[in-house]
Amino acid sequence: MKKIEHIGIAVKNLEQSELLFSRLFNILPYKKEKVESEGVITSFFEIGENKIELLSATDENSPIAKFLSKNKEGIHHIAFEVKDIHKEIERLKSEGFELINEIPKKGADNKLVCFLHPRSTNGVLVEICQEISK
Amino acid sequence: MKKIEHIGIAVKNLEQSELLFSRLFNILPYKKEKVESEGVITSFFEIGENKIELLSATDENSPIAKFLSKNKEGIHHIAFEVKDIHKEIERLKSEGFELINEIPKKGADNKLVCFLHPRSTNGVLVEICQEISK
Repeated sequence: MKKIEHIGIAVKNLEQSELLFSRLFNILPYKKEKVESEGVITSFFEIGENKIELLSATDENSPIAKFLSKNKEGIHHIAFEVKDIHKEIERLKSEGFELINEIPKKGADNKLVCFLHPRSTNGVLVEICQEISK
Repeated sequence: MKKIEHIGIAVKNLEQSELLFSRLFNILPYKKEKVESEGVITSFFEIGENKIELLSATDENSPIAKFLSKNKEGIHHIAFEVKDIHKEIERLKSEGFELINEIPKKGADNKLVCFLHPRSTNGVLVEICQEISK
């Protein structure tokens, strides 16, 4: 794992939370992006070499809507950047980790992403991601 | 906020979780530290410019023991490094954030630390920290 790429935070009201985190970090979000396949709108802040990704649901069947209905707002996942997502998936499988999707899918921010099930990672939803080369 | 300093993860069994996260990150923890005042033992991994801090309770009254009794294992807090913790506390107070401790206290890893209450930050327990100069 090269670095922490971002931390995802599930929020109910994106506009209100953008304001709140702008006041917290003393910076403005630098981009907003809709990810149709995941049913979310995301808003990104940059801090050092990492990003904070606010996530709000656009439909009630999205993973974020389900998370918010079971939990309160809060930290949803940590994403780690990897050099080769296919190799890393093989390595993690061979170490016994349980993957939610074994085939990388297109996520926000021009990334291929894969999630590990929190039951194999001490309750932490881990994402691994790799930039899609242009 | 200069950067994300670390992400704290609450775990029940530190030795087992050190092994698990070593397999996940494919690196070993680089240090273990007991913080008597907080009733925790911590173990640190370094990834890029950030750290992952595993936290386990040493007594049943520690904040981590209380967190684990209410929640499952998982992400406990995000810590942001700041240049001047006293100035940042004043700024955050003036922005209306609620502080758990208004006077910085000594945390792990030679840091002065201050926590913001999750009810003022969308459910995220935020730590701000500053290295204690030697």
